[in-house]
Amino acid sequence: MFKNIKLFFDKVEEFQSICIFGHVRPDGDAYGSAMGLKLALDFIYPDKSIYAVVDQVDQVPDGLPVAKRPGTLPDDVIRKSLCIVVDTSTVERICDQRALQGAYVIKIDHHPLTEHFGDMEMVDPDKVACAQIVASLLFTVFPVISPAAATCLLLGILTDSGNFRFTTDPDTFTIAGRLIANGADIVTLYDKLNTVSLESLRRRGQILSSFQTEGVLAYEIFDKDQIAKLGVTADRIAPMVNTIGFTAECPVWAFFAEYPDGKYRAEFRCSRRYDVSGVALALGGGGHQQASGAQLSDGEAVKKAIRLLSALLPK
Amino acid sequence: MFKNIKLFFDKVEEFQSICIFGHVRPDGDAYGSAMGLKLALDFIYPDKSIYAVVDQVDQVPDGLPVAKRPGTLPDDVIRKSLCIVVDTSTVERICDQRALQGAYVIKIDHHPLTEHFGDMEMVDPDKVACAQIVASLLFTVFPVISPAAATCLLLGILTDSGNFRFTTDPDTFTIAGRLIANGADIVTLYDKLNTVSLESLRRRGQILSSFQTEGVLAYEIFDKDQIAKLGVTADRIAPMVNTIGFTAECPVWAFFAEYPDGKYRAEFRCSRRYDVSGVALALGGGGHQQASGAQLSDGEAVKKAIRLLSALLPK
Repeated sequence: MFKNIKLFFDKVEEFQSICIFGHVRPDGDAYGSAMGLKLALDFIYPDKSIYAVVDQVDQVPDGLPVAKRPGTLPDDVIRKSLCIVVDTSTVERICDQRALQGAYVIKIDHHPLTEHFGDMEMVDPDKVACAQIVASLLFTVFPVISPAAATCLLLGILTDSGNFRFTTDPDTFTIAGRLIANGADIVTLYDKLNTVSLESLRRRGQILSSFQTEGVLAYEIFDKDQIAKLGVTADRIAPMVNTIGFTAECPVWAFFAEYPDGKYRAEFRCSRRYDVSGVALALGGGGHQQASGAQLSDGEAVKKAIRLLSALLPK
Repeated sequence: MFKNIKLFFDKVEEFQSICIFGHVRPDGDAYGSAMGLKLALDFIYPDKSIYAVVDQVDQVPDGLPVAKRPGTLPDDVIRKSLCIVVDTSTVERICDQRALQGAYVIKIDHHPLTEHFGDMEMVDPDKVACAQIVASLLFTVFPVISPAAATCLLLGILTDSGNFRFTTDPDTFTIAGRLIANGADIVTLYDKLNTVSLESLRRRGQILSSFQTEGVLAYEIFDKDQIAKLGVTADRIAPMVNTIGFTAECPVWAFFAEYPDGKYRAEFRCSRRYDVSGVALALGGGGHQQASGAQLSDGEAVKKAIRLLSALLPK
């Protein structure tokens, strides 16, 4: 854990006004970390003015508070505030650039450290969610936090860990248990996160009825016309690549989605025994061992990607 | 927690030979509870003879030990042993009926208590997995258990909780975290539990491409011929009902699968806001609020079920 926890809470005590910012195009973790921290501090310091600032997020269940829209806090409020930026690795991605004008600026994040900003940083890239870091911080000092705060923080953990599928860290589970014991409404969160539309369920059926395989690779090419017929965009369909993933026979899988200009967005995934990042790199893209992608210029490049991926060997 | 924990460990200390039994047609929790307890005690009492007895289970990753087949332990070993029956609610379901001939018999279970057996019972129906109870018991006395034991117990929790989706108990998470901290191999477990065959993925696609909706109900009727074409049986396809579940528009869902004799196996499911148990009861079946089923005599009964389910109102 961090060496500056005492300083963090000293700063929280010192300021009458605290503004907490997430990143642009926020997800459940950006909202959950910002709003969870705000609600926890609200409960402990009812006389302080505390704001959470992020755009609206789909995954938030009804009943949880809506954050302030970026750009809506007056300049003079920000300037006299402790500004805390959560779940955001670079200045460019802060949802309201004025966050850096705060009287004191703290960064709390779980992304790999690529850019320093603020007067103090608490960054741990080994944690699956920023909300887990925020919850750990709070529990270091406060044995109990409010149920609403716990719900927001658990939302961050659930969304960034894919319902606990992408974490191998015992602390994720310990913290989740503690948040639930503090009243986090896991029933409502699961209902919200696991409910899909009939349309997306039928779309999943279309995808599963038409994918192809070659060697270790399962893949699907969506051309412009198919994408239009599915009623989506290349950028909406490409991230659904895991729909055809996790089979015993094809430990590598990919989606190729054509943009209106004839270029393709390619998403590559694989089981832990493989590594698709080299192929992505060779095609001008990048990413992680098990999840990477590239922008491909045409159908020929798609064929090359299929050739490279289908012949991948175990690590 | 239980009042007889001290007596439990007194009995474990007292006996030189311990036989641990699961239920017939075992699942991950039956195997995980029995083998987890055996491996944990093996580590602590290397001089005792400890046996886990359950049939082979699909969900067990390679590398974990295979349990003894029911029926293979000699009678005289069982008669002089402490016999522990895990994850089994009735005598009829014990995988080896001779378990009750043990010198002292302990039942550890998480099913609703419908039948007493043994000299001592530790039953908590509020726990999502028997393995969670076993882990709690062990951690009450031993701060550390072996990684192999922790892996088996985590397998039980993962399978019975559906990767943590069906639990709202903070202890489930706390115990899971502690098992991982003890070396439980969550990576291997997730890989094993989340890997499907290409065939089952394509079958999922066929199901998602052909289901129907009526009112609040999403449903699918599989007649004999379709089931043969899918290469399965009515009893294999019916439990896959959740493939079409959890949509915003259809909070109630059902599968109807025809047996060769023209009867249908019906499986009903619903979101927490609904209750399908009344419909199941009215059709001669039964079950829980959110998961019940019935055997239906013919296609007319299927139509009636669809009529009743599609008109269900929120609780």
